Parts: sequence; C-alpha cells; structure tokens
Amino acid sequence: MTSKVHADGAQAVLSLVQPGLQHLEESLAEIAAPNDPLLGPLLATVLPGSGKRLRPALTLLIGRQSRANTEALNHMAAGVELLHTASLVHDDVVDESDTRRGAATLFTRVGNALAVLVGDYLFSQAAQQCVATGNLDVVRLFAETLGAMAQGQIDEASTHAQGSHAWRRLSSEQYFRIVWGKTASLFVLACQGTGILAGLAPAQVAALRTYGESLGLAFQVVDDILDFTSTEEALGKPVGSDLRQGTITLPVIVLRERALADGRFEKVFQSGGVDEQVRLVQESGAIEATYAEADRLVQTAVDALAALPPGVERTALADLAAYVTRRQH
Amino acid sequence: MTSKVHADGAQAVLSLVQPGLQHLEESLAEIAAPNDPLLGPLLATVLPGSGKRLRPALTLLIGRQSRANTEALNHMAAGVELLHTASLVHDDVVDESDTRRGAATLFTRVGNALAVLVGDYLFSQAAQQCVATGNLDVVRLFAETLGAMAQGQIDEASTHAQGSHAWRRLSSEQYFRIVWGKTASLFVLACQGTGILAGLAPAQVAALRTYGESLGLAFQVVDDILDFTSTEEALGKPVGSDLRQGTITLPVIVLRERALADGRFEKVFQSGGVDEQVRLVQESGAIEATYAEADRLVQTAVDALAALPPGVERTALADLAAYVTRRQH
Repeated sequence: MTSKVHADGAQAVLSLVQPGLQHLEESLAEIAAPNDPLLGPLLATVLPGSGKRLRPALTLLIGRQSRANTEALNHMAAGVELLHTASLVHDDVVDESDTRRGAATLFTRVGNALAVLVGDYLFSQAAQQCVATGNLDVVRLFAETLGAMAQGQIDEASTHAQGSHAWRRLSSEQYFRIVWGKTASLFVLACQGTGILAGLAPAQVAALRTYGESLGLAFQVVDDILDFTSTEEALGKPVGSDLRQGTITLPVIVLRERALADGRFEKVFQSGGVDEQVRLVQESGAIEATYAEADRLVQTAVDALAALPPGVERTALADLAAYVTRRQH
Repeated sequence: MTSKVHADGAQAVLSLVQPGLQHLEESLAEIAAPNDPLLGPLLATVLPGSGKRLRPALTLLIGRQSRANTEALNHMAAGVELLHTASLVHDDVVDESDTRRGAATLFTRVGNALAVLVGDYLFSQAAQQCVATGNLDVVRLFAETLGAMAQGQIDEASTHAQGSHAWRRLSSEQYFRIVWGKTASLFVLACQGTGILAGLAPAQVAALRTYGESLGLAFQVVDDILDFTSTEEALGKPVGSDLRQGTITLPVIVLRERALADGRFEKVFQSGGVDEQVRLVQESGAIEATYAEADRLVQTAVDALAALPPGVERTALADLAAYVTRRQH
C-alpha cells in the first residue's frame, strides 16, 4: 500500500518516509472504521489504500529534514491527505464523475446526497487532524486552503458556464489562478504548513511555500497534458476527458495563444469533434510547449530548495519535483 | 435586520447584544463581497440579512456575561452563523429542497455543483473565523461539530434508506441521536465554545454544554412539531413536509411508542395518505406529548444555568430557552 510513490519512480522518497507513510495508512484505516454502521462502509471505499500519497510524502520529507515532532507531523500528513480525499469526493459530485482511478466514484455508488455528506465528514476529520498538530498557524493555513480550493473549483465552473466559448477566451493567467486554488493550494499546505509546524525561519517557510506552489502548479499542468497524451488504461478514464466535459486546460490555451496551429485552431474547436481537437493538440507542438512550462515551474520549485540545508531530504524533494514532469499517470 | 429575534418574542436578548448582532451583519456582508465576480453574487443571496441569528445571539449573550474579549467574541459569533449557513446550503442540496424561509434555495437557483462548492467555501469562512478567536480549543470543538453535523445528516439519510419502514422502526433514542448531530451540536458550539473562549471554569463550561445541548434538542423537537401544527405561510413550505420526504420525527415516534392512536397508527401509516397521517398526529394527543418532551429539555437547559452567576444575561438565556417552545415558526 505504501509503495505507490515507489512504483511511480520516486524511489528516494520511499525509504526516507516509509514509517510515516505506514503510520498514515493505519490512521486512515482507523478513521475509516467509526462506530457507525452506515458511515464506516462509505469511508472504507475512499480512504485506505488509495491514491499516491504524494502530498503527505512531501509533509513527511520536510518534517524529517526539519526534525519536527513526529506525532504532530503524523497528524499533519493525515490532515493533508484527508483534505485531498474530501476534495476529490466533492469534485466527483461537482463533475458528476463516474470513475476515478479506474473504479466507480462514491458519487456513482451511493448518490449525490451521501457523497456530499461524506465529503463534509472528511473535511471535519481533516480539520481535526490539523488541530491535533497543536499549532494554530497551521490550522489557519488549513482553513484558508479549504477556501482557496472551493474558490478554484467555482472559478473553473464559471469557465464551463461560458460554454463553448471558454476555448476561445480562457487565458493562461486565468488558468493558473484556477489551478492555484484547486491544486497548488493543497501542496502549499503540505509544504509551507509543515515548515510552520517545524518552527522554521520565515525565509525557509517562504521557500517551502514557493516550492509547494510551483510543484502543485506543475503537477496540474502535467495532469492536464496526460489527459491528451496518456492511455485510457493508465488514466482510468477516456483520453480527452477534460475537453469532453468542457474543461479548457493549458495545452489548448498554449495552442491558441501561440498560434501553433495557424488557422486550423478556430475551425477545429468551433465545429470539430473532441477526437479531432485532441489530435490537433497532440500534433501541433502544444504538448511540448506545455511541458516546457511545467519544466520551468519545476525549476522554480527546485531553486527554492536552496533555502533549506543540504541533505538526503532536500535531494529527495528535488527528485520528487523532477518526477512530476516524468510521470505517466 | 437585527430585529429578527425581537420579532419572534425574545425581546430581552436584543437590547443586550444589539451591538454584537449589528457587527455580525457587517461581517457577513463583508464576507459576502469577495473580490470574485462569480462568488460574490452567490454568497450575497445566502449570507446577509437572512435567518434568526439565534445561535450567534447565544454566543454574544454568554460572552457578554463572562466578559470575553469583544473581538474574539465577534469572530466566534460569525463562525457559528457561517457554519450554520454552510450546513443549510448543503442540507438543501442533500434534500433537493426548492424553498427555504419562503424563498428559492441556492440549490434551486444555481444547481447542485455550485451549491456544493459555495457550502464548502462557507465551511472555510466559518473555520477562519473560529481560528481568528485565537483559541485552539475552540477550533477543536468547531472541527468536531462539523463532523457531528455531517454524521447526523448521514444517520438521517439512512432512515430514509429504510424507506417506508422508518415510521415503524425509528426509536426516540435514534431520533435524538440524529438530532444531536444535525442541530444540537451547533448549539453546543455556540454555548460551550464561548465558555471555553471566555476561559470559564470547567464546571461552568460543562453547564453551558448541557444548556446548549438541551436547548438545541428542544429547538429541533419544536421544529418537528411545527411541521405538523403550523401553516404553510409561516413555515415557508407545506405542512407535513417531513413526512412527504420520508423523514420520521418525534411526534410520529411518540404516537407509535405510546400507542396513542390504538390500532389506527399501523393502518394509516401503512396505507393512508400524508394528509391523513398528519391529521392523525394532530388529533391523537401526540403533539401535546411531544411538547411535554420539549418542555422537559428546556427545563434541563434552564436548570444548567444555575452554574452561572445571576444577572441580566442569565435571565435572557433562560428567556431564550422558554421562547423556543413558544415560537410559532
């Protein structure tokens, strides 16, 4: 269960934070087994053994480097992962998604009402774990993150409301503001929050914020690239899913803003099918140009690490950043 | 706007906490006007000028008596009201409710996805206000309350899942466990949380917990009675709405557990229409018996106040408790 990051190629991380990741799985299994006959089975399907545990791995690495109190650190890792899980449960409600990671979503299995409530319950569990760190500044960042995530999703929904015009109007600046909220803010909590928890110097806390923010943005950019370049098997959903549900992402924006497809862009997005649009993105050089954006973000993340003392953890954090652009799903 | 509690007959409260209630309206108006073109209008329809402000009035009264720091107290009052509003937004999603307080719900106006996200955003705002009290114990209680509320709703949904058998099986014990989560827990936050914030002695904090818990239970019991005895005009929804959506409440349970309708109960709930069921509850003495339960709870709440020093605030808290069983909507 704890070998997920390992299997994805970021081996250096695993050996360093193996005990913490093991503890995390135990905590999640415990939270998934409350003394409630209905709630238990609902939680058991979303909490234990799923996901890459990338965000808590960041927390555990940073905490290990800065010698944070182990118990507080374990609560922080659990809080970050629970907030991530809660947001995924509500994302699937918002998007009416059938599948995630190749399996039926909670929304599909138990319906809208229970999925909303289970998400709320998980927000509460995430908040309780952050409170258990004993650090009010960490809880403040948690509360702000919850708001930023909701706002990012609301901003994204507003681009859907523009309907078929989003492909023509959404700027890369707007895209990155949305991605900051829906994805990067949680990486910031995992990284900056752990710096705060460990009592690091302000300059180091700020560097961890930059690292988390840049890494989170790069992570989402690559996610959006993979939606065009990966396989249905690896994604657990059809290629081109974003376009199919009206979500315009950076590869499409890069294609338009840099005029990579000359006159074909307008025609294919105005009246072509999604398969044709996906092919245009794949063949236009937009993927390569978008990967270059992700590489720049990763470089910003790696550069920020210079503020931390050298060591195996700092190397692992740099490796994790590099892995983000190499990953295939 | 701040005269809502006044108009409902609990006059003693108003003059005591008028400045705090006024400050609350200003805070909510500010939160409802973020620098976001989509979010602002969404918040503006649920936050300012709506609701009785009963829960923050409790917080302000208790805080006034215990001489809590005014700024922290204002944050607490806002946190309590924001959590209440967030839960109402999600309740309407869960119940697919068309109207609340006589107006179209956010769910009806903007749809499922945005209503879920606005609820999440309001949870974040509530959390941020509680964090701004500067008291980690208050934030801990807030996080636990969020979980209790979701669990109460999930437990209630499970009685719906039993479908037409809930009227035959739900016990008053199960009913009160659901009500504890979905309603009383928030009263506990408003009362016990303020006691914690004010640094009261443990015995006084415990008394405020008992007061809030009993008052919250009584409040919901009366709510459930009014669904049978009030008018559509006063309720803002049809009489018998609970039965119509499959929710079994205390009047029905009392009717069954005390065999008040002899052999007619089984027949009317097995095969009668909702109008006939409502009439049976109204005419069987179940309403009077359920009011007696509410009165007992109010008495428990009032008795708990003995732990607090006498004064105008304690009198107002007792008056508020008495008002709960007198209110007509």
